[in-house]
This record gives sequence, C-alpha cells and structure tokens, in this order.
Amino acid sequence: MHKAPAGERRPHDEGEPPAVRPAPRLPDAAGRVRPVIEGIRPLVEGGRHPAKAAVGDVVAVEADVFVDGPDLLTCEVRHRPPGATDWVTVPMESLGNDRWRAGFFVTELGRHGYEVRAVPDRFGTWRRDLRARADDGQDLAVELLVGAEIIEAAAGRAGGDVGRRLREVAGELRRAPRGLESALGGPVGGLVDRRNGGPEPSVADLVFGERLAALVRDVPESEGWATSGPLDLVVDPERARFSTWYELFPRSASPTAGRHGTFADVEGRLDYLVHLGVDVVYLPPVHPIGRTRRKGPDGSPDAGPDDPGSPWAIGSPEGGHTAVHPELGTVEDLERLVRTARRRGIEVALDLALQTSPDHPWVTEHPAWFRHRPDGTVRHAENPPKRYEDIYPLDFETEDWRALWAAVLAVLESWIGRGVRVFRVDNPHTKPLAFWEWLIAQVKADHPEVIFLAEAFTRPKVMYRLAKVGFTQSYTYFAWRTTKWELESYLHELTATEVADYFRPNFWPNTPDILTEQLQTGGRGAFMSRLVLAATLSASYGIYGPAFELQEHVPRHPGSEEYRGSEKYTIRHWELDRPDSLAELVARVNRIRHDNPALHHNQTLRFHHVENDQLIAYSKTYLIEEPRYLGARPAHDPRDPNAVVAVVNLDPANVQSGWLHLDLAALGVDPGRPYDVHDLLTDAHYRWEGPDNFVKLDPDVVPAHIFRVRRPRPEEPT
Amino acid sequence: MHKAPAGERRPHDEGEPPAVRPAPRLPDAAGRVRPVIEGIRPLVEGGRHPAKAAVGDVVAVEADVFVDGPDLLTCEVRHRPPGATDWVTVPMESLGNDRWRAGFFVTELGRHGYEVRAVPDRFGTWRRDLRARADDGQDLAVELLVGAEIIEAAAGRAGGDVGRRLREVAGELRRAPRGLESALGGPVGGLVDRRNGGPEPSVADLVFGERLAALVRDVPESEGWATSGPLDLVVDPERARFSTWYELFPRSASPTAGRHGTFADVEGRLDYLVHLGVDVVYLPPVHPIGRTRRKGPDGSPDAGPDDPGSPWAIGSPEGGHTAVHPELGTVEDLERLVRTARRRGIEVALDLALQTSPDHPWVTEHPAWFRHRPDGTVRHAENPPKRYEDIYPLDFETEDWRALWAAVLAVLESWIGRGVRVFRVDNPHTKPLAFWEWLIAQVKADHPEVIFLAEAFTRPKVMYRLAKVGFTQSYTYFAWRTTKWELESYLHELTATEVADYFRPNFWPNTPDILTEQLQTGGRGAFMSRLVLAATLSASYGIYGPAFELQEHVPRHPGSEEYRGSEKYTIRHWELDRPDSLAELVARVNRIRHDNPALHHNQTLRFHHVENDQLIAYSKTYLIEEPRYLGARPAHDPRDPNAVVAVVNLDPANVQSGWLHLDLAALGVDPGRPYDVHDLLTDAHYRWEGPDNFVKLDPDVVPAHIFRVRRPRPEEPT
Repeated sequence: MHKAPAGERRPHDEGEPPAVRPAPRLPDAAGRVRPVIEGIRPLVEGGRHPAKAAVGDVVAVEADVFVDGPDLLTCEVRHRPPGATDWVTVPMESLGNDRWRAGFFVTELGRHGYEVRAVPDRFGTWRRDLRARADDGQDLAVELLVGAEIIEAAAGRAGGDVGRRLREVAGELRRAPRGLESALGGPVGGLVDRRNGGPEPSVADLVFGERLAALVRDVPESEGWATSGPLDLVVDPERARFSTWYELFPRSASPTAGRHGTFADVEGRLDYLVHLGVDVVYLPPVHPIGRTRRKGPDGSPDAGPDDPGSPWAIGSPEGGHTAVHPELGTVEDLERLVRTARRRGIEVALDLALQTSPDHPWVTEHPAWFRHRPDGTVRHAENPPKRYEDIYPLDFETEDWRALWAAVLAVLESWIGRGVRVFRVDNPHTKPLAFWEWLIAQVKADHPEVIFLAEAFTRPKVMYRLAKVGFTQSYTYFAWRTTKWELESYLHELTATEVADYFRPNFWPNTPDILTEQLQTGGRGAFMSRLVLAATLSASYGIYGPAFELQEHVPRHPGSEEYRGSEKYTIRHWELDRPDSLAELVARVNRIRHDNPALHHNQTLRFHHVENDQLIAYSKTYLIEEPRYLGARPAHDPRDPNAVVAVVNLDPANVQSGWLHLDLAALGVDPGRPYDVHDLLTDAHYRWEGPDNFVKLDPDVVPAHIFRVRRPRPEEPT
Repeated sequence: MHKAPAGERRPHDEGEPPAVRPAPRLPDAAGRVRPVIEGIRPLVEGGRHPAKAAVGDVVAVEADVFVDGPDLLTCEVRHRPPGATDWVTVPMESLGNDRWRAGFFVTELGRHGYEVRAVPDRFGTWRRDLRARADDGQDLAVELLVGAEIIEAAAGRAGGDVGRRLREVAGELRRAPRGLESALGGPVGGLVDRRNGGPEPSVADLVFGERLAALVRDVPESEGWATSGPLDLVVDPERARFSTWYELFPRSASPTAGRHGTFADVEGRLDYLVHLGVDVVYLPPVHPIGRTRRKGPDGSPDAGPDDPGSPWAIGSPEGGHTAVHPELGTVEDLERLVRTARRRGIEVALDLALQTSPDHPWVTEHPAWFRHRPDGTVRHAENPPKRYEDIYPLDFETEDWRALWAAVLAVLESWIGRGVRVFRVDNPHTKPLAFWEWLIAQVKADHPEVIFLAEAFTRPKVMYRLAKVGFTQSYTYFAWRTTKWELESYLHELTATEVADYFRPNFWPNTPDILTEQLQTGGRGAFMSRLVLAATLSASYGIYGPAFELQEHVPRHPGSEEYRGSEKYTIRHWELDRPDSLAELVARVNRIRHDNPALHHNQTLRFHHVENDQLIAYSKTYLIEEPRYLGARPAHDPRDPNAVVAVVNLDPANVQSGWLHLDLAALGVDPGRPYDVHDLLTDAHYRWEGPDNFVKLDPDVVPAHIFRVRRPRPEEPT
C-alpha cells in the first residue's frame, strides 16, 4: 500500500497523502537469499559450455562469494560424477578479497557436475563476535544465550545423537555464570577433550574449540543458500591433457622403396615410435581415394595414371568414409594395427575430413548433401578465386541435414566400434559450430574416452569456440610464433587466462601443410629448438615425421609453406637410420616429458627474465603447494616437488648467451640456499646459488637446456 | 540409426555391423543456427543485471560475431525504448578480428532493451566471391545465375514494389551473356544510376553498385538469425553521469552564529551554491533525532541537554523517516527548498539511512523489524567490540520482511511525492543486496529520473555488486588513492574495464566521516590538488562543505580520520567569506567542467607520461571520431573536438617539475604541427609543438594545470 508507515503521521508530516497504488510486488523467499556468487572459474561462457579436466586432475574451483555486512560465510563446492545423483561437498577456503577456492579429485570419465554454494555462517559469526567482545571485557551473559539459541537451532536440524550432544552444549551455555571472566573461565563438562589431562576445560574451550565447530558444521543450514546452479565439467582421459603425437603417412611407411606402404608396415614401425616416446600416431585419411580430377605431384592438376592422389580426396567406387584404401590393406588390418599399437601404449588417431572426392558413393546416393549449381553441376571446394576441383564439400545447409548429421555420427561410431579412440578433425571451422557441438556430445555420451583434435588454423575466436563446443585438443598458431615476445604473449593467453578452462593447445612445429620459413632456413638448430619449445611449452605436442626428424626443409617454391615433393600427393621413402636424424633427441625429450610431471600440465608455466632477446626461459612446476594438482597423480610423491626450467636459443644461426634471472619463489627454491640443477638433455649437473646465472647455448650443439631444479640432497652428486 | 551410411558396405568395409541403437536426438532448426555471438559490451554478469547509460548518450554496443567458414555476416544491434514494442535496427560495422560495433542514441528515461543479431550474408558473400572470380578471369555465367537465385529469394521475401525491382535485376543477371568480359561489361537497364551521364552502365555496375546492395539489405533473411536475446539497459538522467555534489548540514547553515540552521537558511545559501557550480546539494538526514543514548560532541557517550545529537540517529516522538526535525522547519519548508533549488538548477538529495534511534516510532509499532536479544532488549548497532548504542539496525532477516520492505518503499515514495529526485544511501552494504535490487527497480519503474548514490566504503566486490543491482552512482576509494600509481591503476579499473558498464564513480576528497591524512597535513596545496583530481578524473564528484573550501583539517586525535568538532554531533557556524576560502577555485573548476564536454564522461580517460612520479597527467576527449559519443550532445558542434589535459602536482609541500610526454594521437592533435594550449585555471595561453613539454607546478600557487588543447586557429591569440 502506498502510504506512510504507521506511526509516521505527525505534525511535521502533513504533506499531501500520496495517491493509492497497488501493493508492491514482493519476491518470494528465494528472492531474499543474501550471499552472492560471481566470477566462477572454471566457467565457459557463463556455463553455456562445459569446462574441461582430465582423469587424475584435482579440479580447483574458485569464486567471488560475499554477503552484505560483516557476516561470515560457509562456502562449498559440490561435485557429482557422471550418473551419480548425490553431491559430494568440499568446503571452500578463503583466499582473501572475497575470493574462495576448493578442489575435487576426478577419477571418472564423462560429464561431471559441480556447483558453488554459500550461506551465512551464523555460528561462526557469533563465535568471532564473542571473541571480540570477550577480548574487550564485555559482559557475555546474553551473548552466550544467543549462542545457545543458534546451537539449539542446529540441534533441531540435526536430530538424533548429534542433536542431543548439541543440546547439551547449549545447556552448558545457558547455565554459564553471568560475569565475563567466570563465564569464559568456568568449568564445563561435555564436549571438551580431556584426554590430555591439563586444567579443567572452560566455557571458552567449549565455544572456541574445534569439536563444537565441527559438530555444527556438519549440520548445514536448511535455508538461505545461494547457488551457482549446476555447471558441467567434461572429464577426458589423461591423454587429453598430456600427449605426444606423431603424424605419418601409412603409404610411405614401407621399408622397401617403391612399394606402397600398408597398415602392416605401420605396425612394423611401432618399435620406432615407442622408442621415440610417441603416444598418439595420427594417420591422414585412410579411405579410398578418388580418381576424378585427381591431383598429381605437388598438387599439379594433371595426375598421371600412377599418381596416388591426395588422401583427403575421399571416396571411390571402393567406398567412402567407413572404407579403407585397398592398397593400405583391409579394415581388419587397420583394426589389428589399432589393437597392437594400444598394447604398446600408442593410440591410433584417424582423420575425420568431412568432404568427398567426386567419386564418393554419397555423391550419387545422397545428392542432396552436396550443393548443386544452377547448371546442375556439383559445387566443388573453392576459396575464390582458388578452386579445389578434386574435392566436394558437404552442404551443411541442406534440407536433408538430419540424414547428413546422422551419417557423420555413424561414420564415427563405425570407427569407434573398430577400436579407434582418437580423431584428428580436418578443417572443422568450415562446418557449423552447432553441428560439432551436437556431434561431439553424442559421441562422448556413449564414449567419453574419445579425443577430438581440431585442425583449425583460422581466426582466434573461431578456434576458441571450437574448443568451447567440445573439441578436446586444438592445433594452434605455435608454428608461426618465433620471437620471445610472440611466444610469451601467446603462451600467456593460452595458459593464464580463461582460455585455459576449455582450450587445450597441441603444438606442432610442422605438419604436411606447414613447413615454416624458420625450418626452411634455420637448419638443424631450428629443428632442435622448435622441438624443445613445443615439447616443453605445451603438455601436448606433435611432429609430422619422419619429415621432422630427418629435417625435411625444401619448400615447393620460395615463399611457400608447402613441402617440395609433398607426401600429400606423393609416396615417399624415408631412411629412418640416417646419421643426421634427430630421432635420438626426440626420444630423449619425450623421456624427459614422461619423467617430469611438471611438463604434464600448462597452468604453472612462468617465464623468467633473460638478458638476451634471443634466449627464452620458462618453468613448469608440480608442487605440493599448488592445490590444483594436489593429489592429481597419487603415484607421484607429493614430498618430491618437480620443477623444470627450460632455456632455449631462438637464434638457429648463432651462439647466444646472457644472464638468466630465475624467479626462485615460483620454483619452490629457497633463495638463500644453493640448489641443484640437472640438465636433462646433456646430463650435466650444476649447483647454483641465487637467482642470477649465466647461460650460453650453441645451435650447432644443443640449443636448449631442460633443467630439473631441486633443493640439494646430500646423497646426490652435485 | 547406427549403421554405416548407405553405399558404404563394400568389400573393404566388412567389420562387424555395429549394434542397433536408437536414432540420435537431433536439434530443431534453432539448433542449427550458424553465427555465434560472444563478448558483448556492455553486459553485466552475462545479462543478469542491466547496463547503464544516460539520456543523450550514444550507447556503443560491441560483440564478437563470427560464423564457420568464409561467409560474410550481417550483424545488427536492435534497440527498444521503454514501452516500445518495435525494435529499431542499427547495422554493426566490423572492427576487425571478428569484433563488431554499432551505437544508438538514447533520449528516453527508463529501462530500454537491446540485442545483438547476426545472420550469414548470402548476397554479400556471393558478391565478394564474384569479384574474386572476375578478377581471376573465370567464367561467370553460372555464378550470375546463382546470384539471380539469391536475389529472387530476396524478392520473394520483399514482395510489392521492391520485390518487382529485385526480380527485374535477377532477370538482367539471367540474360547476361556467358563470357566473362561481356558478362560484366555488357549493358543493362534497370537499377543503375544514370543521372550523371557517363558510359552505359554494365552488369558490374549493377552487381557491385550500392543501389542493389541497399535494396537487398532492406529485405532481411527470414531465418538463420543468431541473437543475444534481449538485454536490459537502464537510461538515467544526464546528472547520473555528470554531476557536481555538495554536502552540507542544514543545521549549520544559519548565517547567525548560535542559531539552529533551517531549510530556509539552506535556501538562502543557494546563491553561494549556484556560484560554486553545484548541481546536487546533499543534506544528511533531516528527520527527528532520538534522545535515548544520544551522543555528545565528537561522539562522546554522554550528551548534555543542549547537544543536538547525530542526524543519523533517526526517529523521536516527533516522527521517523517521513518526518522532519522540527528545528529545521516543516515538511513544506523542505518541499519549498527542493522546488526553489530545482529552479536554480540544483537537485536536493536526501539521505536514506535505514536505521533508527531507540525512540523511532517503528521500535514500538513494529518490534518485529528489530532483532531482540534473549533478555528482551533490542540489539543495537555494533561492530564487535565497537557498540553504537544510539542506533538500532533494522532486521532484514525478520519474518515480517514483507512489511519492512514495503515500508521502506513507502518512505521513498513519500519523499518522491514531495519532489525529491536524488537519494544518498547510507551504508547500503549492510542491508541485503536482493533488497536493494527490488527496491530500486520498484522506484525506477515509476520514477526513472530518480538517482541513488551508494555510500558504501567496503570490499571492492560488494561495492561493485551494489552498482550492478541498481545504484546509479557510487562512492569510491578515491579519498585514499594518493600516489600516481594508485590513481592510475584505480582509474584504469573504473574506466577501462567492464566496471564502466555499470559502476559510476563519484569522487569525494572529503566527507563528514573522512578527513584524510593528506588533508590533515598537506595544507592548502593538498586541498587544491585533491579538488582538481576529483573534478577532472571523475565526471561526478562532490565535496563536503563548507569544511572543504575552508580547509577544515584538524582530526579528532592523531591517527583519526574524524574531524575534531565534527558536524555529525555539533552545530557549526561557518564564515563563508573568509579570504582564504577556496570557493573561487571551486567555482572556476566547476565552470571548466561545465564548459568542456570532455569532462562529462570517463571512458576517454588516458594517462600521459611525466618524468616525475609526483606529477600526474591525463586527458579526456570528446571527439567526433569517438563513436560512443557521436551525437551524444547534439547541441555541441561535432566539428569542435574538445580535449582537456590535466597535470597535477601530487606533492603538497614542494614545487615539482618534469617533462610531459603527451600522446598526441589520443588528443586528436597532428604531431607535425603546433597546437594551442590554454590553461583554463590561470587563463595562460601557450603554443606547443610535439609531444614533449616541460611543466612545473607550485603547490603554494596552483598545483595543477587544466589545459584545453586544440589545433591552432588563426583568429585566436596564441
């Protein structure tokens, strides 16, 4: 009612009575909830997309949580594994400035739930204020009765034995003498631990002791909770976070020059891949290759009869996306390769390239899935004015989209049914984002172990959105980030912003499409430094081999990033045992990665200052102090913090040296004591003291240090 | 259906048929929408709270908008004033990197709607690709037919005359000759403008001309739109963005020492306030003051019979929050003051302090609105161990909260009914945020012109949330930000981050509660520099006077921020015409503020480098190039850009000098030409050239420059 509150109509309050208006609309009880929750991490687009974690991670959840006035809060994170109906509650700890944090350990694949909740902490607030009043010498009698009421309310919610014990405590408070000193000093029975003997416990011991607090804490408030609402977290296999990839063309895998490689040949190469330390081997498309408008060597438009064509021109009378190219072997051969590789610790990744050759069965069986021009021809792939006449794109705007989407899902399910768990997706940015969101969610609902790597080299926001809609890992701009400033700023964006909540970078120094200018001109030193950068900056990385370890570096023509004699169009024969091969360095770097859990994550990446712009230095750590990782790898002894510092010479042509200034605090090293530095590449040991040390790196030898840094141990050599 | 797509069952595809499973759930058509909209500004907590603007603003809306593949997009902002049902559409322009922007002009108070929408631009994409194909010399015949289909589809959506004209164009394209040169070179009739004579228009003129594009643009796509959904924007009066406040105690406003001041005395002071350039005069609570446990001078616990008490101890037998203190006059006197002040361009702001003295009528009439302790006493205000026994807080957790909330709304409506439009709210952070959100929304639904200033000095996230839930302006930490680094980083946070979307700072160098150490010890120079900083860094600022202009600076005791002889507890008599008064400087600074639209906004604030940490330099601009403000003040000639540079000596004790390096681009000044610099404080004129100039400021004279910077004009003195 629009009128002055009763009691206000006094002589000095004689203005005109306001017009009558309807009673104001009042919120229901939920509209009165006092705590506020904001700024949750991880959180992707306000919860529109799931955050990501991997099995074995401790997921650290942070939020700004606050309430009006000086009341204390109870804040908690609740976590629910896939399929569970009950929440597991973890209390959050205050980080100051209204920021709170808690972590939970994830062990199950699939879509988990989490939420942040908060409620005013009446008991804690009362206890804090009682302490302040006591310290000030105030009479506490009435305040003890207030506390008794709060504890009795908790007892009412608890019931049973806990309720009884709480009521006993409330009774003690009600019986406590009135005077201050006596009130807090007087003896009580009940809840105070007397096992250690000592003086008779007092009311203060009772009120401020941990036992009462624990009892009350276990009886949560029944109303007044604020909540973030449930949020989604996709938990992937550990390989989603930490993986070492290797791309190879099976048709070039024959040990015999001139013979078409087969799946069996790839099986024969597993020893080599295991030695390298690879855990995902990615095969470009293995399907039948079209003949119509087939491309010749280096992509020339006129293929000869013996030219093998591009594996990305998928489909021939022999079949489409669920068939395999006859010269590679049979589907069973591929299945055996997948099984054999898995026994050796390697997953086989297939390519999902959603396009066809003009000879793909879909072209005649599902003409509606292709765009037809007004003259009746099928529109081929193009990026005007460029034309790719051996490729037909699928038309995702077709009226028959439901059938098309279902068919793609069926392709994936077919390969998953044959044991494949990893897919590298070709150019996902040219297919609708909504399609990927649907497709990946469908697959992962039944097969949460499946990993999708997005091969999108496009504008940054599109690349990030692909990760948000579900891609497990993503190619990046790493290949073109070569200066210290470029690397530092790009890595900051990837590892120290919200991007880290959903985007998992996979760093590739080369691919069959990308032979960077640096690799063309930088010689062996460039290959070595790019390898170390990729392998230590990013927990997931890959190389296209054997071109990489054999330092293939001649471009199709000056200014091109294409390889001359590209395997995309030509079968190559590689001499793996060439003495100049970098295979042993690759193997060593991957062993270092495997042995050092610091390198299995990206979020601890810190750059350190070096007084030379051609030298870059950074560290990753796996420390007990880092709650995000606490318990993440139970097999790893948390008392043994792992800290790795890499220093890389970015100049492939010259020796570079300079003073390195380590942020010792970031490494968990006591600045006042010497510490041990072990170069895991050369096996050299040093003992350093203080943050400043001189480093010098020769690209003709090894252009990088990968140091393990640790406090000295008497029993170790120094 | 889980089976390989038809046509795939070939010899090489003979793996086990996957088990039958239900057809995948497919989204409806909305689930296929291709464009993505992210990163909208302004946007407050993902749209949970409205953004803010003021009447006369151009609201610039930005968003990341992108789509899979290379298609062009049509992006637009739609805007809907309060009560309107139709949207007004403004096309967005691309800023690069998938960022888009558009602005709309707001002229009506109240809650507006806006949204961002996007759809693939089929016509534009076709036209872009056609240009690339033509430049490459490709045959365009079929592509012209494709264009004809796109234009015919638009014609079908348009109907009527536009449809007829579009169909004519499509016909021209269908009739165009097949050859490339002839196709784009051949003559057409129809849509091409021939008024200027010139050669016969060609198909190229038709296709690439602006007329066809405009026709198609006016026929929007009927489906495939992505939308942000409607978002709220609260449009406040201009004074919400740009305002000059002055706090005074009416009881100290008597021109006669020893007589209690009245509302009529405040009316008598309006000439003075108009001269100062004030546009909001804020009165501490004007309600009857309680007697029970009334505080004496400087807050002492034992008031004498003649001590007037604190105006914040609201309520006595004479009435509560809707009554006025008898010694100040009557409600009618206050109403007349409000009316008279408004005629002079000044709004009277009342204080909303939601607490009572023990003598407030609510204490007996609504005991449920207060918290009672177990001994039956009402809990007084406290911050343990501190006790404020003359004040009872209202219990917002009462079961009778509906009546309490309604009563507070009735208090506001009572004063609004008497003409008050501005409220300064006392300690809002000690009342529930949900309450404020409800209360302010209720008031502004009927009275969108009302302004609420939040007097919260608490943790940053709580202060920001108060602004999000509806407060129009907010007190800040400005009083305690004194070094260059502190000021620059705080102002960056307030003006260059999302905070600017909802939080409007109001800078106060002093208040009756805040006599900073700098003002206590810094002398006249400190008062002058703090005045200039507040008035030029923030579009809204205020002073507590006459204490400020008379440089009142003695604390209650060393280390205290309270004034000795604080007006909170004592009636003071002020000699306004003291020769050392800073009133003339205040008047001059406020005239400068009024005359320079650059100072009416905060978002253009830029700091400039000075080679002396005791000197701070910054600029604000109001430039035609700034789309945010384009047209915002139609009365201001957009060809006359306004650029103001302030340089302030932060050291109140010493002359400071140093080289100033202006970012001339930010000022719209051509770096290669001389420019005019007019010190609006001293009226000195300079002609500068290049970014680097030497500045020197003496705190004993005027410790600041406020320069108007502009390109030289021949007719002006230099």
